[in-house]
Amino acid sequence: MVHRPGLRSHEAGSVTEADVDAEVTVVGWVQRRRDHGGIAFLDVRDGSGVVQVVADPDEHPGVGDLKMEYCIRVEGVVRLRPTGTENPDLPTGMVEIGAGEIEVLAPAKTLPFMIDDRSEVDELTRLRYRYLDLRRPKMAENLRARSKATSAIRRTLDDLGFLEVETPTLVNSTPEGARDMLVPSRLRQGEFYALPQSPQLFKQLLMVSGVERYFQIARCYRDEDFRADRQLEFTQLDLEGAFWDRDDVLATIEEVLMAVARDIRGVDVELPFKRITWQEAMDRYGSDKPDIRFGMEIVDLSDAVAGSEFGVFAGAIESGGTVRGINAGSQDWPRSRADNMTERAKELGAKGLVWMVVEDDGQLRSPVAKFLSAQEQSEIKGLLGGQPGDVLLISADTWKTAVTVLGGLRLDLGRPSGHDELAFLWVVDFPLFEEEDDGSITFSHHPFTSPASLDEMRENPEQALSKAYDVVLNGVELGSGSIRIHDPDVQRQVFEILGIDAETANRRFGWFLEALEYGTPPHGGFAFGIDRLVMILQGEASIREVIPFPKTQTGLDPMTEAPTWVDDTQLRELGIDLTADSKLRRDGADAGEES
Amino acid sequence: MVHRPGLRSHEAGSVTEADVDAEVTVVGWVQRRRDHGGIAFLDVRDGSGVVQVVADPDEHPGVGDLKMEYCIRVEGVVRLRPTGTENPDLPTGMVEIGAGEIEVLAPAKTLPFMIDDRSEVDELTRLRYRYLDLRRPKMAENLRARSKATSAIRRTLDDLGFLEVETPTLVNSTPEGARDMLVPSRLRQGEFYALPQSPQLFKQLLMVSGVERYFQIARCYRDEDFRADRQLEFTQLDLEGAFWDRDDVLATIEEVLMAVARDIRGVDVELPFKRITWQEAMDRYGSDKPDIRFGMEIVDLSDAVAGSEFGVFAGAIESGGTVRGINAGSQDWPRSRADNMTERAKELGAKGLVWMVVEDDGQLRSPVAKFLSAQEQSEIKGLLGGQPGDVLLISADTWKTAVTVLGGLRLDLGRPSGHDELAFLWVVDFPLFEEEDDGSITFSHHPFTSPASLDEMRENPEQALSKAYDVVLNGVELGSGSIRIHDPDVQRQVFEILGIDAETANRRFGWFLEALEYGTPPHGGFAFGIDRLVMILQGEASIREVIPFPKTQTGLDPMTEAPTWVDDTQLRELGIDLTADSKLRRDGADAGEES
Repeated sequence: MVHRPGLRSHEAGSVTEADVDAEVTVVGWVQRRRDHGGIAFLDVRDGSGVVQVVADPDEHPGVGDLKMEYCIRVEGVVRLRPTGTENPDLPTGMVEIGAGEIEVLAPAKTLPFMIDDRSEVDELTRLRYRYLDLRRPKMAENLRARSKATSAIRRTLDDLGFLEVETPTLVNSTPEGARDMLVPSRLRQGEFYALPQSPQLFKQLLMVSGVERYFQIARCYRDEDFRADRQLEFTQLDLEGAFWDRDDVLATIEEVLMAVARDIRGVDVELPFKRITWQEAMDRYGSDKPDIRFGMEIVDLSDAVAGSEFGVFAGAIESGGTVRGINAGSQDWPRSRADNMTERAKELGAKGLVWMVVEDDGQLRSPVAKFLSAQEQSEIKGLLGGQPGDVLLISADTWKTAVTVLGGLRLDLGRPSGHDELAFLWVVDFPLFEEEDDGSITFSHHPFTSPASLDEMRENPEQALSKAYDVVLNGVELGSGSIRIHDPDVQRQVFEILGIDAETANRRFGWFLEALEYGTPPHGGFAFGIDRLVMILQGEASIREVIPFPKTQTGLDPMTEAPTWVDDTQLRELGIDLTADSKLRRDGADAGEES
Repeated sequence: MVHRPGLRSHEAGSVTEADVDAEVTVVGWVQRRRDHGGIAFLDVRDGSGVVQVVADPDEHPGVGDLKMEYCIRVEGVVRLRPTGTENPDLPTGMVEIGAGEIEVLAPAKTLPFMIDDRSEVDELTRLRYRYLDLRRPKMAENLRARSKATSAIRRTLDDLGFLEVETPTLVNSTPEGARDMLVPSRLRQGEFYALPQSPQLFKQLLMVSGVERYFQIARCYRDEDFRADRQLEFTQLDLEGAFWDRDDVLATIEEVLMAVARDIRGVDVELPFKRITWQEAMDRYGSDKPDIRFGMEIVDLSDAVAGSEFGVFAGAIESGGTVRGINAGSQDWPRSRADNMTERAKELGAKGLVWMVVEDDGQLRSPVAKFLSAQEQSEIKGLLGGQPGDVLLISADTWKTAVTVLGGLRLDLGRPSGHDELAFLWVVDFPLFEEEDDGSITFSHHPFTSPASLDEMRENPEQALSKAYDVVLNGVELGSGSIRIHDPDVQRQVFEILGIDAETANRRFGWFLEALEYGTPPHGGFAFGIDRLVMILQGEASIREVIPFPKTQTGLDPMTEAPTWVDDTQLRELGIDLTADSKLRRDGADAGEES
């Protein structure tokens, strides 16, 4: 393999004592220039690190003009730094390069911000000058980590015999819950392609095609309102296999994630990952993506307070609901904080929240204590393991509201900051369907997910389980998968339950239903988001930190200013035109009223 | 590493004598069923190959219902085939599986075509049922080859320390010669993203960012009229490096292509590849992408016929043109074939074509022989190395027309069919600019290509060379690259020569020109098409054979019927509407007049 050194003989960060007396050439950016005792000291940085260059202005009259981030080439001789000036924190800290020749490859204007990890810069400015932002050490490290992640994924799946197959990105709309992004066709004027939300149907077709192990690192698109740290385009590992079952999928994904964690974090994650059912996740953590790095689990108090004189508790249970609590531990709260908790519980959907503090003498202090019998108090305290100083929070509501509210409070109160620990978790046995606000039924994952039992699906669709599963890392859903429906009749039944009549199903998915008719093997797969995985492994709080060129919440690239207005003639070639409203907006922008 | 067997104990193609007496489970598709002496013989195929299953209909009453491409699971015991019935051509040909249990995993309808490489099927039908087409051995092999290619590319570049970086696909228009595909923005109604024709500007920004070695296997988009085997979307290896020069880029690409050729074809390509300049390629082969697997090179006959009495020759030279010829070798032509050659030459832009046949006695037979002196005839024959029986073809025209016409005829007459031999070639020193039909100047590669010499560019732009280079395989241009402009002032000068005034340059590329102001390192790179590379290595004649789900020449997917009409409300959310013409088309389609 030919490694090409290019313009340099040595990478800046690789020059050490072993090179003393050698003539070397380094290239890079001037990270800092100090003038000290009439001599100029330059920290020259390239991708590998930093090396110190020493230049006498008498010999190098131009050295005083070298400003920060000038790109230069330096020829010189390596020598030991004078005793007492070594920097043991730097791999190159024992040596310096005595400059022979210094060439400016490219000057740099005054920077909009400092190239270091210490300066706080607002995100819009960072995105406007992303090419400088990416020079900062942490961002450069994020780029490297992302590359390591995709490399580890591919290496693992290569070794396991998976084929990488590219599926098209100019496709038809598929029903995956978000809006499609559209691409007008010029050759078929007035018609549109959609950009894929995922390669779902194509990867299933590959299973019909006899590709038994498929993967792809796929660009996907969702035109969502940008809440919760989303981007219009994102990248996922997409994977599918035939003639295998859930445990085969899970074991494969575990191998992949273990390899990524090892290459980025240098840790060996324990396999297999823990597994819990969706029901258990909701009961214990009030979430389908529990953060299991800490306890504070939800406890069912219903039996203890079923006959209580306290109407809130008794009433909730009588009306089919539940009373549940968490032990928030020893929280040294003022009263106002407890009030805030109640407000937060209401935001999460609760009608109210009961709080109790375990006093030093074991008694419960609470506004509702007087309504509870001694035995009820004792049982609550016992079930929640309350010790003196502990704060107990209790929700009496429908099951779903009670666990969701307590799950939300649990995260607010107990979640570790950062991601030093890595807690992977499988959540399995998801419901097949969900009820929408208007009472209609929709799919939980997507309409191609296999039911756990056909009989159950037909008799009791609201309760029916699916063969769907999610992988969760530190309370963040990384991805999901399922065993798919491979029988076209079952697929038709699922469409029917979803309220898609036979005619609509045939019009929209007839081609896919037909494909299933030609000896389709049982199959299943998975997909997880690369952006979120790398974000967590790098300890970042936003996916924008691990996406090389992300967009803002309104879909703008502050650097290139994409998207932009387009000539009417270009649009008419595509068989489209702006609406009157859009034209007004554009004319306003042209007049400089809006940018 | 956990390899998951899934539903099977053995892959069908892996069952051998070593497994005799073992209980095995195989899965796959019924490739063939023969009933012979009251016994059913099933060829069961999975991704690894085929194994024979033998079933007695008395024990397996359902076996008679197993039709072609049924997907089944078979449990049974491996045994040696009876003597005389072995098939030495098959890896599993010494054994068979005596069926214990046969389970139908999925039945198959009657197939639209046979799953083999022998049946001729029209392409539209193949694309309509692509999931069955991909089961054919040759297509399955193409999928595997493509996966091997991308795997070899990534492994090589990983080893060389390149970072894989994903650049955005919702971008602004860039000037790369083809129409952009557009994506309307919903959050910024009336504005549009473009899908990238290449990651050109973003990879240059990565160099500004300090990423010194970048690569990406990138999906790109060009809205061209589908001539010459193009697709709206295609995949390229995109690569860029800082602080290196042309030879570094070329050596890296050679490593990559050698690895791909080795993994797909099992051959070691000789490095370095041959190199010729663009000028030499045009002079010798009449093409900037010469197929050097055969000779038939173009020879300059001008000196030999400069003073000829034959007006066509003399006139061409007097008016600044040239007379050139090729020796088409021993072509056993009827006269009509020679006339066809003249027609073909006219298609290629010639005004006419002179042909000569070397007779057994060494004389030239030709309609124009009588106008040429004995010495002229002798020199022509000598320069072209004419032997008895050889056909000599001569064009007298401007330099460009003469070499282009002879280059085209050379391919028609001499090009080997198929791609058994692999002849890689670098073409270097391309012109910087080209003249357009209207006499204006445009870029040859793209406007970010570095001129070979600034002085030359300023003084004589039409003749100026660039630091651009192409890689050619068997006469097919695989890809191109260049050393880029890293000095914003040079970039501004190039824009100016291209007729882009300063204001327009600033409006369209101001952000990029500014990026170049911050210490941009010298850099250069390359991109080549994966589709074409795999096509040639697989010996296919069209890229559609190596694209899993391609579209037709009009951009249609005959399987999913993408693109499609979209609801008006969905369009209005995007700030656009159909033109009146498109609405008419749609209403016609709705009425069933057009599909």
